[in-house]
Amino acid sequence: MSLTALRQRIATVSDLLCTLNLLVWDSRTMMPAGGTESRGHQIATATRLARDMIAADQTLELLDQAEQEVAGLPPDDDAHEELRQIRQAVSLHRRVPAELVERRAAIRAKANAAWAAARDANDFAAFAPWLEETVASTRDYADAIGWSEHRYDAMIGLYEPGETVATLQPLFSDLRLGIAPLLEKARERPPAELSGGPFPPSIQAETAKRFAALFGYDFGRGRLDATVHPFEISFTRSDVRITTRFNVQDLRPALFGAFHETGHGLYEQNVDPGYTRSAFATDLVGLYAVGGTSFGAHESQSRLWENHVGRSLRFWRLHFADLQAAFPDALASLTPDQFYAAVTVVRPSLIRVEADELTYDLHIMVRVELEAALMDGGLSVGDLPAAWNDAMRRHLGLTPPDDRRGVLQDIHWSSGMIGSFCTYTIGNVMAAQLFEAAMRVDGVSDGLDRGDYAPLGAWLRDRVWRHGRRRSRTEILQHATGSPLAPDAYIRRLAERYGA
Amino acid sequence: MSLTALRQRIATVSDLLCTLNLLVWDSRTMMPAGGTESRGHQIATATRLARDMIAADQTLELLDQAEQEVAGLPPDDDAHEELRQIRQAVSLHRRVPAELVERRAAIRAKANAAWAAARDANDFAAFAPWLEETVASTRDYADAIGWSEHRYDAMIGLYEPGETVATLQPLFSDLRLGIAPLLEKARERPPAELSGGPFPPSIQAETAKRFAALFGYDFGRGRLDATVHPFEISFTRSDVRITTRFNVQDLRPALFGAFHETGHGLYEQNVDPGYTRSAFATDLVGLYAVGGTSFGAHESQSRLWENHVGRSLRFWRLHFADLQAAFPDALASLTPDQFYAAVTVVRPSLIRVEADELTYDLHIMVRVELEAALMDGGLSVGDLPAAWNDAMRRHLGLTPPDDRRGVLQDIHWSSGMIGSFCTYTIGNVMAAQLFEAAMRVDGVSDGLDRGDYAPLGAWLRDRVWRHGRRRSRTEILQHATGSPLAPDAYIRRLAERYGA
Repeated sequence: MSLTALRQRIATVSDLLCTLNLLVWDSRTMMPAGGTESRGHQIATATRLARDMIAADQTLELLDQAEQEVAGLPPDDDAHEELRQIRQAVSLHRRVPAELVERRAAIRAKANAAWAAARDANDFAAFAPWLEETVASTRDYADAIGWSEHRYDAMIGLYEPGETVATLQPLFSDLRLGIAPLLEKARERPPAELSGGPFPPSIQAETAKRFAALFGYDFGRGRLDATVHPFEISFTRSDVRITTRFNVQDLRPALFGAFHETGHGLYEQNVDPGYTRSAFATDLVGLYAVGGTSFGAHESQSRLWENHVGRSLRFWRLHFADLQAAFPDALASLTPDQFYAAVTVVRPSLIRVEADELTYDLHIMVRVELEAALMDGGLSVGDLPAAWNDAMRRHLGLTPPDDRRGVLQDIHWSSGMIGSFCTYTIGNVMAAQLFEAAMRVDGVSDGLDRGDYAPLGAWLRDRVWRHGRRRSRTEILQHATGSPLAPDAYIRRLAERYGA
Repeated sequence: MSLTALRQRIATVSDLLCTLNLLVWDSRTMMPAGGTESRGHQIATATRLARDMIAADQTLELLDQAEQEVAGLPPDDDAHEELRQIRQAVSLHRRVPAELVERRAAIRAKANAAWAAARDANDFAAFAPWLEETVASTRDYADAIGWSEHRYDAMIGLYEPGETVATLQPLFSDLRLGIAPLLEKARERPPAELSGGPFPPSIQAETAKRFAALFGYDFGRGRLDATVHPFEISFTRSDVRITTRFNVQDLRPALFGAFHETGHGLYEQNVDPGYTRSAFATDLVGLYAVGGTSFGAHESQSRLWENHVGRSLRFWRLHFADLQAAFPDALASLTPDQFYAAVTVVRPSLIRVEADELTYDLHIMVRVELEAALMDGGLSVGDLPAAWNDAMRRHLGLTPPDDRRGVLQDIHWSSGMIGSFCTYTIGNVMAAQLFEAAMRVDGVSDGLDRGDYAPLGAWLRDRVWRHGRRRSRTEILQHATGSPLAPDAYIRRLAERYGA
């Protein structure tokens, strides 16, 4: 009875969070410029109502009663895990004062605009006061959540439960050691040739949709649109939308953007339908309608389809002819091997979102190192630009010529999103482990050889997608691969591709 | 203090209702088919939260206190009218039991699907049980709201405050008498010639956007998309969206659909910005984010731009060349006068949404007569198809060959929307009064002569649009034209156009 009422309440929260996702999707794809301020109010209201509903006394009472109701159920009944997750969210949202949530929202609304203006003007000093407020309020937020070893741990845990500064250090250290020699070798490779187009956006869009459908993405429950920054977002598994971007001179951003977002989309579309509107398809801690179990697990699916499937010689030997048929003039003189070479160029660069596969994680290490120092107070905002440039020299051997191409490049900090960067690397690592395990499954690799992605999809659906948030990333990885998170498989894959 | 808190609460309700409008807009323009069920939950949740927030004890307490706070303010202070409107909404939503609201939502969800299937199968009996439940629950709803002379009055008042069965009867009667002789004359006119296209939809869309912009619609705070049934919807005045439909063989639905929705859009875009997120830009009774003051007033703006501006010989003598330039092959052989003749063809027909300007109101009279009889119990659902056909014969001289083209044609009843039809005719009547008054204003008619729509827009902005819901339809009409609602001007306009 109370369990039913509690589930109804969670369903309502889920409806609100799906609605919030639509407000966000629309603001990035369809909304006229004039709508910005009103949309901010609408997003703030939906977020606040969802949070208040989770933190309400009535929810806590229902939860207390529901826990008693399920106490007698068998230990493997889903209700135990369901209530554990709800308890965690209720407890967290009741620990964080509403005043702090409002303060962070108010800072974010202004810091976003200040950051965009400061980046355009290459003026870190103009952003610094907002970043100071963001860091201070994030420290307060982490303290409200609670932490034991490192304040940063509280923030990391919001995006990747179980990870901490202590668990990330050996992972990053192993990766650095594995990547360094590959980077030396990759620098020696001759520059790759690529056509400069033109690639008409409408044909790029059709092509991207064809590949997404080939991978198994269901357009009856989704759509693909154009945006500046590609993303995937869902309003339950029945409506999962992806975007990509179109550059008339360069086909790669649209293609690999679409492969990446298709990976995210496949995860969301294939969560167990029984989890719809429940805690197992809603991030009640982060207040986000999402079926995937962690940011890292989600990124593992996008990276798997983008890099292990799509960025492979096997793939382009099969499909480059389709691409040539779509762009007969622009691609006439290229071979599949040349195209593959052009999509695996390695070149250390200043901008994370433009980084190649091999150097991407080095950008992440820069950010995680600086975030940890900001959170424990070892680094002040005033010293951040110098620290950024120093870290870029150490990790990538490059010195940013200005802050625009340095410390001001990412939107994350202006959004109060401190702690999420590590999940990109965790996604890369997990993707390699899953792909290696999938290759040992009968029929999967044979499928890839003939352009049949259904066997791979079926294995991922069974091992990863369908479990939604019912299982943690650690449980999923252990069950699917027999191992915990470890960088070996990833380094092996990178060595195959870039070490030859 | 309480007034501030109350206004904050209304702002939150407004945010929810703007969000609800986005859920609806998206479902009709962008949503993949798979999203239908989830979207239903999201819409139900947003609606319920808005309703609960208005009906909450806390809102009533704030309202009681706020009324005391404003008691000493000057009588012309806006706060008095603001609180009067909030009081009316709080009182109504507290009178209607939550159980009844839920029941009507549940019926609607199923009745919509049953109606669509019954219409396709031409099977009234399959829809009848749902219509019976709808009528019964609407009667309960009207009784909960309260009424004195006619139960139907309670429902009419939701859409057009102040109108009742008693006020509509003389209006409709005068209109019938005015239209009848015009219809006789119009039937004698020779059939008009019109090109069968092809009219490529993308060029239709560009053309529609050019006309909308010419009328003053601001695309920086709006957009135009394609739908099956054109509509306008807004998420505050900063984001007001319109749609139209594209028929490759017939240009008229796209053009006049766009003119119509542009009229609605102009109203919303020009409500006083100070009313944003307040009771003066939110229908707190109907729970709908809308700046216009009544359904009829809204329709007056769409009809004014569609019929008085766009469906005139003056207009096409000025702009037909633009149309020819957009569709050089399809329109090469037509003159402006021939095109005008083709957009003013009169022919009594079975389907309301396809009706011409002169016979449209006769369709409304059929529906209002039947709705009134259903509400007072004089007509049973079982007798409805025969009553429909009888009314069609009396009002339009036509007998529907089947229920698909008869009693099953409109979606309204399956949506529980009983009482709104009269607002279409009120819109027609009010449009003519406003247009006639505008023609007496210096510069307005001269502007139309040279294709300058700014003087007309400026007068409408001042007399109608900017007032939002601050003034009632009756106040606006009296102030703008010096008269109450009356059919004379409308009949004069129809006689000019169709009586010659």
